[in-house]
Amino acid sequence: MEPDVLGLVAGALTTIAFVPQVLRILRTRSAHDISWLLFGILAVGSAMWLWYGVRVNSLPLVVTNVITLTLQLSIFGLKWRYGRGKRP
Amino acid sequence: MEPDVLGLVAGALTTIAFVPQVLRILRTRSAHDISWLLFGILAVGSAMWLWYGVRVNSLPLVVTNVITLTLQLSIFGLKWRYGRGKRP
Repeated sequence: MEPDVLGLVAGALTTIAFVPQVLRILRTRSAHDISWLLFGILAVGSAMWLWYGVRVNSLPLVVTNVITLTLQLSIFGLKWRYGRGKRP
Repeated sequence: MEPDVLGLVAGALTTIAFVPQVLRILRTRSAHDISWLLFGILAVGSAMWLWYGVRVNSLPLVVTNVITLTLQLSIFGLKWRYGRGKRP
């Protein structure tokens, strides 16, 4: 398989995991049980993978991490709106 | 920052997220609530990132995905042992 195609399929699979979490928060309008720390660590990690992807000219890494970072920042925004602090 | 160092730090951050899940299953000896599908998709994704990393000679991608794949397969093994089917 062409490396770029391989990387893009890999990226689609590891990105898709975040979609149900975003949809769940939108549906329940609740994000009290979401950990700032976990998503904070993952977002910093994705930002660094993106930076690495730019440095080594990897299209799949750049595309994948732009999308995962967007999803993770959406989860942050939704948590800010729907669930700071513990569940009431 | 040196690209390899950047990638290895990125990989450490996105890998570390799986460690608490493994520790939790070992502590509680229960994995009923773990989704085969989510971890299945992630494991196939990690295997493909590993393959992509080999093809493009990326040390950080290879190192990171060997570790995440090992953690994901451990979660599979633990689920096989501690929690097939619904919670009793």
